[in-house]
Amino acid sequence: MTHRTPRGRLVVVGLGPGKDDWLTPEASRALAQATDIVGYGPYVARVPERPGLVRHASDNRVELDRARDALALAMAGRTVAVVSGGDPGVFAMAAAVFEAIEAGDPAWRSLDVAVLPGISAMQAAAARLGAPLGHDFCAISLSDNLKPWPVIARRLTAAAEGDFVIALYNPASKARPGQIHEAFGLLRTLKGGDTVVAFARAVGRPDERILLTTLADADPATADMSTLVLIGSSETRLLSRPGAEPWVYTPRHYGAGR
Amino acid sequence: MTHRTPRGRLVVVGLGPGKDDWLTPEASRALAQATDIVGYGPYVARVPERPGLVRHASDNRVELDRARDALALAMAGRTVAVVSGGDPGVFAMAAAVFEAIEAGDPAWRSLDVAVLPGISAMQAAAARLGAPLGHDFCAISLSDNLKPWPVIARRLTAAAEGDFVIALYNPASKARPGQIHEAFGLLRTLKGGDTVVAFARAVGRPDERILLTTLADADPATADMSTLVLIGSSETRLLSRPGAEPWVYTPRHYGAGR
Repeated sequence: MTHRTPRGRLVVVGLGPGKDDWLTPEASRALAQATDIVGYGPYVARVPERPGLVRHASDNRVELDRARDALALAMAGRTVAVVSGGDPGVFAMAAAVFEAIEAGDPAWRSLDVAVLPGISAMQAAAARLGAPLGHDFCAISLSDNLKPWPVIARRLTAAAEGDFVIALYNPASKARPGQIHEAFGLLRTLKGGDTVVAFARAVGRPDERILLTTLADADPATADMSTLVLIGSSETRLLSRPGAEPWVYTPRHYGAGR
Repeated sequence: MTHRTPRGRLVVVGLGPGKDDWLTPEASRALAQATDIVGYGPYVARVPERPGLVRHASDNRVELDRARDALALAMAGRTVAVVSGGDPGVFAMAAAVFEAIEAGDPAWRSLDVAVLPGISAMQAAAARLGAPLGHDFCAISLSDNLKPWPVIARRLTAAAEGDFVIALYNPASKARPGQIHEAFGLLRTLKGGDTVVAFARAVGRPDERILLTTLADADPATADMSTLVLIGSSETRLLSRPGAEPWVYTPRHYGAGR
């Protein structure tokens, strides 16, 4: 028996948040070359139908099954694009694909697999607000079907101790809607009440909505699954301007007593 | 005397790292509409000359002067694009522009200012490696002309305590080349010697170079100013494959004892 090298290709493509204006030329080309699009329904729907293209839409909670299906298609010689909103490398499908490879058919390791980066939700939110990520920051997912609350609490505590700007992804899960309340409860014991907080919902989509507030005044229920929550460092500040919401930014210098 | 609203526009544009394949359509359009390009020389050089376009190239260490010049041009009615490599919101020109506005002419606050996000170096590096940013992570700049070493040390310590994946930006400054050695020295007291470390240099450029190693074996001198350093969490792992460097990824689940 001869060993056949798999000839298919699997690309994990970031669509960016919300609008195609943030889709990179590299990602556009990969979508145009694909024979199969695999992903969560709303993301697959963003790739226009065309002759010869097969679109495989799946539910939201089946990342690993979706990754395995995509790998099997690539093994069969197809050119597969697994699509993610935002950046597939940030809390998204790229890690699921490598998890599937690690636990799966050893032949999958010979496949041509590439990850194509995209604009992530925190970057789109930051751009709308001003420059809140202008200094050291961290990104934490509150998706508690992927990790236990003590791990989230440990990371929120460390993020506060380091005085990082914090980007919270997946703030409101259907399974445990109380998690974001617990997160704010914890952060209020660790950071000043006047810390800048922004809820940035659906940035780049027609239903985009930005709410600026403080840690003391924030209502965690503002966050739904389309919301990116940004919590400032002690240096993050508002910059007022006439006729519009203030800009939010974090200076590049820290504690310089400007 | 009547109040004249400034009519110019200032956009802070992320070019992405290295290659135009990562330049978003939104950023391309802004560059095409600009009358003036302002930025560090190598970034300005990435915007092709055309009739009517004025390119203002400056040195690397004068972000605030550059921001003020750009704001003055916008006040004079020009359509100004301030260009940054990567994402202008991440350790780049967006924060400098808002610093200049905060300290500058109050009329600057009436300008039409927009930040356009771009692919940041850590995302390009992560995509090349696999999915090291698949779980919670933080980004820390080692540029010590912007903050004192105790702040950097506090944040590295917090990042280790939180077991975040760590992306280090600006690892080797000309002013204090020893900083990256101090950072590795500190992290070695806080994290396991087998922690995955990647030096990702000039990703997307012809001189791209990736080096995979461990925290115990890493030579900090590998990092130059074009290098993004990624340091894994305790869960970040290598995934071997035939005929190529292993993939690096961080599972979405934490401590699940898979």
